[in-house]
Parts: sequence; C-alpha cells; structure tokens
Amino acid sequence: MSDTANEPIQSFTAKSDVPVRIEPRRQGFDMATLLGLIGAVLLIAAAIWMGGNWTAFIDVPSILMVILGTFAITTVSYSWSEVVQAQPVMWRTLFVRGQAPDEAAMKVLQLAERARRRGLLAMQNEFSALRGEPYLLRAMTMLVDGMPIEEVERNLTFETHAMAQRHQRSTGILRRAAEVAPAMGLIGTLVGLVQMLGALDQPDAIGPAMAVALLTTFYGAVMANVIFLPLASKLERNSAIELLVNHIYILGALSIGHQENPRRLELVLNTILPANQRVRYFD
Amino acid sequence: MSDTANEPIQSFTAKSDVPVRIEPRRQGFDMATLLGLIGAVLLIAAAIWMGGNWTAFIDVPSILMVILGTFAITTVSYSWSEVVQAQPVMWRTLFVRGQAPDEAAMKVLQLAERARRRGLLAMQNEFSALRGEPYLLRAMTMLVDGMPIEEVERNLTFETHAMAQRHQRSTGILRRAAEVAPAMGLIGTLVGLVQMLGALDQPDAIGPAMAVALLTTFYGAVMANVIFLPLASKLERNSAIELLVNHIYILGALSIGHQENPRRLELVLNTILPANQRVRYFD
Amino acid sequence: MSDTANEPIQSFTAKSDVPVRIEPRRQGFDMATLLGLIGAVLLIAAAIWMGGNWTAFIDVPSILMVILGTFAITTVSYSWSEVVQAQPVMWRTLFVRGQAPDEAAMKVLQLAERARRRGLLAMQNEFSALRGEPYLLRAMTMLVDGMPIEEVERNLTFETHAMAQRHQRSTGILRRAAEVAPAMGLIGTLVGLVQMLGALDQPDAIGPAMAVALLTTFYGAVMANVIFLPLASKLERNSAIELLVNHIYILGALSIGHQENPRRLELVLNTILPANQRVRYFD
Amino acid sequence: MSDTANEPIQSFTAKSDVPVRIEPRRQGFDMATLLGLIGAVLLIAAAIWMGGNWTAFIDVPSILMVILGTFAITTVSYSWSEVVQAQPVMWRTLFVRGQAPDEAAMKVLQLAERARRRGLLAMQNEFSALRGEPYLLRAMTMLVDGMPIEEVERNLTFETHAMAQRHQRSTGILRRAAEVAPAMGLIGTLVGLVQMLGALDQPDAIGPAMAVALLTTFYGAVMANVIFLPLASKLERNSAIELLVNHIYILGALSIGHQENPRRLELVLNTILPANQRVRYFD
Amino acid sequence: MSDTANEPIQSFTAKSDVPVRIEPRRQGFDMATLLGLIGAVLLIAAAIWMGGNWTAFIDVPSILMVILGTFAITTVSYSWSEVVQAQPVMWRTLFVRGQAPDEAAMKVLQLAERARRRGLLAMQNEFSALRGEPYLLRAMTMLVDGMPIEEVERNLTFETHAMAQRHQRSTGILRRAAEVAPAMGLIGTLVGLVQMLGALDQPDAIGPAMAVALLTTFYGAVMANVIFLPLASKLERNSAIELLVNHIYILGALSIGHQENPRRLELVLNTILPANQRVRYFD
Repeated sequence: MSDTANEPIQSFTAKSDVPVRIEPRRQGFDMATLLGLIGAVLLIAAAIWMGGNWTAFIDVPSILMVILGTFAITTVSYSWSEVVQAQPVMWRTLFVRGQAPDEAAMKVLQLAERARRRGLLAMQNEFSALRGEPYLLRAMTMLVDGMPIEEVERNLTFETHAMAQRHQRSTGILRRAAEVAPAMGLIGTLVGLVQMLGALDQPDAIGPAMAVALLTTFYGAVMANVIFLPLASKLERNSAIELLVNHIYILGALSIGHQENPRRLELVLNTILPANQRVRYFD
Repeated sequence: MSDTANEPIQSFTAKSDVPVRIEPRRQGFDMATLLGLIGAVLLIAAAIWMGGNWTAFIDVPSILMVILGTFAITTVSYSWSEVVQAQPVMWRTLFVRGQAPDEAAMKVLQLAERARRRGLLAMQNEFSALRGEPYLLRAMTMLVDGMPIEEVERNLTFETHAMAQRHQRSTGILRRAAEVAPAMGLIGTLVGLVQMLGALDQPDAIGPAMAVALLTTFYGAVMANVIFLPLASKLERNSAIELLVNHIYILGALSIGHQENPRRLELVLNTILPANQRVRYFD
Repeated sequence: MSDTANEPIQSFTAKSDVPVRIEPRRQGFDMATLLGLIGAVLLIAAAIWMGGNWTAFIDVPSILMVILGTFAITTVSYSWSEVVQAQPVMWRTLFVRGQAPDEAAMKVLQLAERARRRGLLAMQNEFSALRGEPYLLRAMTMLVDGMPIEEVERNLTFETHAMAQRHQRSTGILRRAAEVAPAMGLIGTLVGLVQMLGALDQPDAIGPAMAVALLTTFYGAVMANVIFLPLASKLERNSAIELLVNHIYILGALSIGHQENPRRLELVLNTILPANQRVRYFD
Repeated sequence: MSDTANEPIQSFTAKSDVPVRIEPRRQGFDMATLLGLIGAVLLIAAAIWMGGNWTAFIDVPSILMVILGTFAITTVSYSWSEVVQAQPVMWRTLFVRGQAPDEAAMKVLQLAERARRRGLLAMQNEFSALRGEPYLLRAMTMLVDGMPIEEVERNLTFETHAMAQRHQRSTGILRRAAEVAPAMGLIGTLVGLVQMLGALDQPDAIGPAMAVALLTTFYGAVMANVIFLPLASKLERNSAIELLVNHIYILGALSIGHQENPRRLELVLNTILPANQRVRYFD
Repeated sequence: MSDTANEPIQSFTAKSDVPVRIEPRRQGFDMATLLGLIGAVLLIAAAIWMGGNWTAFIDVPSILMVILGTFAITTVSYSWSEVVQAQPVMWRTLFVRGQAPDEAAMKVLQLAERARRRGLLAMQNEFSALRGEPYLLRAMTMLVDGMPIEEVERNLTFETHAMAQRHQRSTGILRRAAEVAPAMGLIGTLVGLVQMLGALDQPDAIGPAMAVALLTTFYGAVMANVIFLPLASKLERNSAIELLVNHIYILGALSIGHQENPRRLELVLNTILPANQRVRYFD
C-alpha cells in the first residue's frame, strides 16, 4: 500500500479542519417494534370484541398454564440466570435503534482523515468523543498502543464472532419459546378434550368445554406468532446490522493502521453499503 | 498469461471495427409474474363463483385482520422503513426483466476485444454506452483509474456479496410474511371457533359461523401461497441471475485488466453459461 | 510424477493394440421411472375402483383448479421460458439412462493408455469416437490444443459447477410444484367447505359437497407425492451420477495431461467407484 | 518428526514380542435392531389385541396399496437396480455389529509397533491377518508398495469420502420411503373418505367405512415410524462409526508411513476416542 | 511474539506471589433443570386436577405403549449399550453446573502468570490443583513434556472436536426420542379411533373411547415437549459452554507454550467472553 504515500495531502477538503464531529449515537426509540406489536394485539382484540361475548376468551387457568408452562420449559432448556440476564440485552436490542451503517461509515471516515493528517498518536485526544462506541474505541486504543495490525484484526474478529454467538443465543431463547408455546397450547387442548369427552352426557356443556379447550391453543398461537417469533426476527435483523457496523469499524481500523488514503477506504465502505446509504465524505 | 502476447492481432474478425454496440438493456416487462398471479387468482375466483353464493367469501373484518395483522407483524420483524423501502426494489426486481446472461457475456466480450485493440485507456470513450450497467461501469472505471487488479477484484466481490445479502433480506421479508399470513389465519379461525362454540344453542347459526371462522384460514392460505411465496421464489431466482451476470462482469473485468486474449475469456464465459445460451463472438 | 517415466511400457497388456473401442453410450430407456409412476397410479385407481362409484373422484373444475393453479404459481416463481425450456432437459434426464460411472471409467482408462502409448497429439484421431460425450471431448480438445493443465482443470470445474447449479434449478421447479399442488388443494378444499357450511339446511347435500371439497386435497396430494416429488428425487439422483461421471472425466483428463501411468489412474478411479462397480482394465 | 528417531526401542514392552494378534472381527449379530423392531411391533399388536376385534385392523387392499405404493414411488425416485442392490448392504450394515473403534485402535497400534520393530517391508507377512479389514489391508499394501505418503493419504481420503456418499444414498432411500409411506396413507384415507361421504345415507356403514379409511394412515404411520425412520437412523449411526474406524486406520497408516513412535500414535488416537473407550497399549 | 520479551516483569502485581489458588470446580447442582421440569409437570397436573375426574388421564396400557414404544424405537436407531451408556453422561451434563467461562479464564490467567514467573517446568508442582480439570491438565502435561506447540494444538483441537461429536450423539438420542414419542402417540390414537369407529352402535361408549384414544397423543406430546426437547436443548447449551471453556484452555495453553505476556492473553480471552463476564486479573 506504499502507493498512497506520495499523494498530495492538500487534496483533502476543508472538512478536515473542523474537529471530528462524532455525534452521539442517535439512540431513538424504535417505535416500529412497539407499534407493530400493539397493532397486531388490537386487531385480534377487535376481532374478539366484534363477536360479542369477549369474556369467553379469558380463562385464567389456561392463561397461567400456557404462560408459566412456556416459561418453565424455556428455563429448562437454558438456565434461570440466562433467561433473566437475556432480558435487558433483549429489550435494548429490540427497542433502541442502533447505529446506522452509513453514520458508522461517516464516523470512521472522519477518524481516518484525522489520523492521516495529524498522525495516529494524536487520535488519543478524540477518544472522549468515541465513548458511545466501545467497539470502535477499543479498536483505536489497540492501534494507538502500537499493537501489531494482524493482532488487532484477530482480536476484533474474535470479538465480533463472539458477539454474533451471544446474539444467536438470545434469538435461540425466543425461538425456543416460540416452539414451546404452541406445544403447551396443544397439551392444554388435549387435556380439555379428554375432560370434555368424559362428560358427553351433558350436551349443553360440550360447546363451552370445547371452547375452553381451544383457548390454550389460541393463547399458544398468539404468544408464538405475535410475540416470540417477530421479536426473534427483529433480534436477528438488528444483530445483522450490528455485525455490519462492526465490519465497517474493522475495515476502518485496519485502513487507519495501514495508513491508507481515506478515499480508498470510502470506496471500500461503499461497496458493502446498500445503494441508498452510500456515503460521500470527500466531495 | 504472457503466452497471449504473441498471438496475431489480425486474427480478430472485422467485428471489432464497428463501434462497441452496447445496446441499452432490453428492460421488457416480465409479464409471466403478473399473468401467473392473475391466472391463479382468477382460478380461485372461478371456483368460488361456480359455487354460487360468492358473497359468503367476503368478510371485511376477516380480510382486515389477516392483511393488517400480517403487515403489523412483518413490520415488527423488520422495521417500518425497511418494509417500505423494500417495495420499489421488490417491484423492479419482480416485474422488470433483467439483463440476460448471454447478453452480458456478449457485452463483456465486445469490451474486451476493444480494450485489447485500442488499449485500456481508450475505453473511457465507451463509458457513456455503459450507463445502463452501473456495476460494469464501476469495474471499468476502477481499471482505467489504474487500481491494482487484486483490489478491483476484492471491491467487486465485496459489492456482489453485499448485494446478495440485501436481496436475501428482501426475500426474507416476503418469506416472513408468508409465515405470518397463515398464522394470522389460524388465530382468526380459533377466535371464530371459540365464539361459535359458545353459541351452540342456535343450530342455524353454526354453519355460517364456522364458514366465517374458516375464511381467515382461507385468506391466509391464499396470501401465503398465491402471493408471498411465489414472489419470494421469483426474487431468489432473479437474484441468482443477477449474481451470474455480475460474475460474468467480474470475469470480464479481470480478463481486461490482465490483458488476456478475449478468445480465452469467451471460452471461460461459456463454461458458466447454460448450453443453450453459449455465446459465439469470435467465429 | 516423474517416477512414472521409467516404467516399462511393455507392461501394458495387449489390449492397447486394439483401437479405442469407445462404444456409443448405452442410452437405454429408463423403464423404472415410467413403470413406478404407472404402478403407483394404478394402485390408487384400483383403490378407487374397488369402492364402486368411481365417478365421485372426477370433478373437472377441481382438476382444472389444482393443475392450472399449480402451473400458474410455479410460473410466477420462475418464468414462462424457464418452465417450458426445462421440459426437454427434464424428460431426457428422467427417462434416458445416462452413462454409468464404471463405463466412463473404462473409457477414460482406454484413452489414457492410448495417450501414453501414442502421445497426446495422436488423440485427435479418436475424437470422432467421443462425439457422444461432449464434456470429455471438450476436455481432450483443450489438452490437445496445449492449454495449461491448471486452466483445463479450472474450466472443467467451472463447467461442472455451472451444470450442477442448472440441475438444481430444474429440481427446484419440481420441488416448488410439489409445494404448490397441496397448497392449491387446501385452498380448493377451504372454498368447498365454506360453500358447504353456508348450505347446511340441505342435509342430503352435505356428504357429496364435502366429498367434492376433499377432492382438491386429494388431487394435490397425488400430484405432489406421486408425480412431482419422485421426479425431483430422480432428477437429483441422476444429477449426482452425472457429476460423478464428470469427476471421473476430470481425473482422467488431468492424468492424461500429466502423462501419469494409467495404472495409477485406475487405482484413483477405483477409490471413488462403489465396490461392485470397480473396474479392472489392467489385470 | 525426526525427533522420534533417537528414542530407545527397548522402551517397548514385552507385548511386541508376541505375534500381531489381530483377532477376527467380532461380527456378532446386532440383536438391538431386531429386538427393538419386534418389541415395537408387539406393543402395537398388544394395543390392537386388547381392544378385541383385531380383524378390523387388517384390510388387504389397504395394506397392498401402502406397501406397493411406497415401493413403486421409492423406485421412481431411485432406480430398480439401486433399490434392489441396496438391500444386502443395508441388511449387513443394520444387523451385523461392525468393528468397534477401540478394537480398531488396538489393531492399528499393534501394527505400528510391529512396523517400527521389524521394518515396514516385514509387514507383508501379517497381511493374511488383515483379511477381515480390506480398508486397512489396502492402506498397508500401498505403504509396502512404496507409494508416496501423500498419495496414500489422498487415496484413502477419497475412498472414505466415496463410502460416506454411498452410505448417504442408502440412508436416502430409507428416508425417502419414510416420506412416501405416510403420503400414500393420506392418499388412501382421502380415497376412503370421499367414498364414505358419497354414501352417507347408510348410517350404519359410516363408522366401519371411516375405520377402513383410517387404516391406510395407520399403516403409513407404522411403516414410516417403526420401520423406515429407525433403520435410517441406525444406518447413519453405523456409517458414522465406520467413518471413525476408517479415520483411525488413516491415522495409523500415516503414522506407520512416517515411521513415528507408536506411543505418539496412541496419544493421537485417544484424542478421538470417547473417554470410556480410550486404549492403553503401552503399559 | 518476540516483542514480549523486554517487558518489565515487575509489572506483575502482588497477586502472583500467592500460590495458584485454583479452587475446586463449583459443581453446584443445576436446580433450574429440575425445577423447570417439575414446574411444567405440576402445571399440567393442576390443569387435570381442576377438571375433576383425573382418573380419566391414566390409562396404563397407553402409558406403557408410548413409553416402551419410544424406548424400543430409539434403541433401534442407536444401540442398547449406547442408550444405556449415554445415561450417566446425560444426567451429569444436565444437572451438574459446569465450569463457568470466567472462572476458567481466571484459572488460565493464574497459570500463565505462574508459568511466566517460575518457568514452564515448575508448573509440575501445580498439577495436583488441576485434577478437577482433566482437559487443562492434559494440555499442561503435554507442554511440560516438551511436545511441540503445533502438536499440542492439534491434539487439543482433535479432542475438542471429538467431544463435540459425542455430545451431538447424546443430543441426537434425545431429539430422536422427541420425534418418536408423538409418532407412537399418533399410532396409539389411530388404533383407538379404528376400534371406536367399529363400535359406533354403543353411543355411550364413543366419548370415553375417544378420550382414551386421545390419551396416547397426550402422553406423546408431554414426553416430547416437556421432557425430551428441553433436555436436548439443555444438553446443547451445556455442550456449547464446555466447548467455550475448552477454547479458553487451548488459548491459554498456546499462550503459555509461546511464553507470551499474560496481559495479552487476558486481552484475547476477554474478546471471547460475554461483556458481563469479562475478567480483570491484572488491575
């Protein structure tokens, strides 16, 4: 990459004179998740309401059985602490909008331009601005500390890989719950059916008994399809974006470590960004 | 590849004297998608019509519940902007017939022959003809700008890989919707069944109530099997063709960059083209 | 591989004196496919016949809906021309018994022995005998034309890979149809059930109406399980054999190109042939 | 591996003085398969017997339809000869208990110790004892014949890979049959249901007709779950063990070829053996 | 890694003066598994109890058929000894809480610091403290015995790989049982239904007969969803943790073998530990 050494530094635009404006992460609340969930629940509630007699859909023992049963069996599959500890990570990942890939790319380009103008060691002054991005901060710290580039790359790749595995485990808990809920619903319905079939001599009770028997299947289907599966998909999608952002940070850190021309970095970053998120840092 | 240097240039046919006729992409409308969809819908409509009483198949609340529910839950799984932004890409990919692999191969062979006759730098004059193919244009620009071949290959491969991942996400939205629709249908049917079972004392109402309960399952099955799954398959298939075309462009760009004999490029391209689409540029 | 140079050529058996008897491919008709299909259909027909009243199983609108619907939706998933063009390839692959791996191995060993005795260039005279095997012919042509071995290997591997992908697409069409047919059957049955439930006041009509409603499910199950899925499996299996034959041709071409001792080639080929198809060319 | 040369040979225990006791393979009959199958069938038979009226479970046309239909469709998916030829391999693999990995490890260690004491060429005298293990015999023959180690490794790996693929095909036939059987059962039940629904005017006949209709589903479920799927799992498990044994033989042959210290081989073999099957050949 | 040689050893904290406190593994009983199982069973029992008539849920022949049938068929799929021998491993893995990754990391860091201060050979005195960790003990023994690092790494990787495969087999037995149990339930229900349909002339008996028929489905669903599948998931999760711990041990052993600075090891270990389990051995 020695071909970048003799490029005129004055080709940088005036942008690089302003301090690195690494804005705090726009951690907006991701309304889509909440609104979608509420919308789906309201739709089902409306369908129930319109049929009159909505009390027929509430059977506390059935609700307890499906919810507690799903929780108990999911706990068996993992462990108490895992299910509990997964909660904050899960809620944060679900409702907090993460770093967008194009913002991450801009941030990395600013850093790269700075590093090229002022030298790698001067980057220490910018570290406070990176507090919101611990991953990028760790990458820059390793570079400034003089760790060999190959080792920096290995450590960052290890960390990303381990993060992906942890995300998979969180998703796994949700997917497992989505398998368990309909199964508990089926078991509840079978219990109800056997009880009903043993009392066929009371024709009036058959209908309501069967309705109650079906309720657990209904609860299980709603829990799996309206709550667990959508959240698992969301988690996977957010994880994919976070991996992309980390990939951008790795590319940036390696480029800074190799003291490449930031314009080249921009070109590379644009190849992995979607067409409508491509960045133009240099005119 | 120095063994290509001493081949007589006069072995090129007269074809290379005419200017590079890189015709605009034949972006015909892909009628198959639309006709197939309409055909399937008409078949179902006919089956309903023949049974008389077609009004029994229209229940606005059920329709709203399945359609809106599918939309809400799919939105939870992804994000509002993603579902909305995926629309234009999706419609374009679905209904616009893309570049055929054999046309792409011919285009690349014309370019390669030109580049060999007139030199790489002279290719700048042809760039306006490549406007319809941004990917190929980017590849040629990088070559003419003197970027090292390995880096050109890396950038193009990165970009193709990122494109494949974006296509997978679009397909994922459709596949997710195809999972959600029958689930919403099942939930709707369970709601209807529980309501019906609570009112078994009106024997006349049982039939129609059950018919209405089944309608959401019907809507969900039609949405998943007639709309979402076929479109997802189509998207995957179009993505596969676009990847093949990009692969042809990569092979062409590398061949031009290495200044290989275009006849060798033709041989290589024909190995990856289906038997009935093999090209014969040099007779 | 220079250790093969000083082996006595007289160790070759007298076999190599006779001309290369590369017999035309025994392209027998693969009766198993047809007989199996007919057998399965006859079994179902017999089951229907024995129940008397076989006319109850024929409902032209239902048949049209399932068959045409399956065709329409499969067309959406791919494209008109693809579904049509896949037909000849499909029928040929299904009903024509291909080259057996052991015959291919013998053919390659004959060629290798010849090439070693008379030299590579003399192989041009044998090309007419290879007309039935275009893949092997292309491999030999590239060798005789003096293409570097690595490039020959790359081209052959590319071509095999592309062939495998095309076979996968043909299989994909059949597998897709096998998914669509039961879905259309389910949709037809739902239509029938809703119609029936709206007319419960005619008790005599319930049975026949429900029978008709079930017919689409029946047609869909037969189409998927008796026709599409078995043919898809057959296609996959034939594709696997063709890939094995191509693998044998690649190994043979490379061995000829490296001018290895054909006995060594025999040893290698026997490692990838099943125990009961091992060849003994050199006794 | 030159660091093994100066180790004192007298460190070998007295064991190596006795001739290589490569006992004949303990090819006991694997009763588990047969007993399990018989047990499961007896359980179902008992359940039928206890319900009285066991003749209701025998319907020859239904039996013929499911069995012959499964055979016909499985034949379409593969080929006549394949299904027939797969039989002996299948029965042997299913009922004959193969070489245990720890016995194979002991055998290989004995061979390695011998080869180190007496030299590789002296191993020819032991070949008769290896007759029961053709794979190991082939490996030793190639070594004694002076084939380069890399080529020995390549050939053995090729052969193991091809064997794994053939086993997969046998398993595939069984898995395919396990898919076909319930499908034929479903088709038979649909035929029965349609026939029954056309004759609802004979109320007495409804029950028995429906019972007969359900029989094909019952036969299909039993065939798939009691016969085909367990045998497929068994085949896969036996194939995994045979692959492990072959892996042990490859490691042994390479170690002998490299003239390594057999103690090192023991260490390596123990890393791939389960904890309760670790071998202790040297004191 | 020679760049670590000139770092001042006095940078080590006072911690390294105390003996390596490798505490015995905290092998607490993993209550979560047991409590979850009991909770789920109690929930189902409560649902049955509340419906009165709980005797209707106990049918000894049905219980025997599902339990014994599942056992018999699972035995066919594997082998008698495998199913029996898998028990202790399974119970230990399920109920004994293994080494936590952060404890393993601390242990490895202590060892690494010791080895750096006192030299590798002095580590022999610490071996008694490692008795609880046979894997780590084996790794250290190989290092102290002077085996080349590459060979140590190969052996450890082999062993971890073989362990993962054995865990997969145990999980496979449970997953297989989870497939078989509902299948046996379905077969039992089909038997019951056919028997019931043959005796429709006793209207009073229909309900109870059908209830009994449904019981096998109920048993199968409970066995699969409450017992086998959760245990299989737990086994997979525990296996993943054990693999992570082994990975930490491999990294530690290689670091000790290369005589790297333990601070670097800490950095690397922290990249693969979850954020809330990161270790700080060196302040």
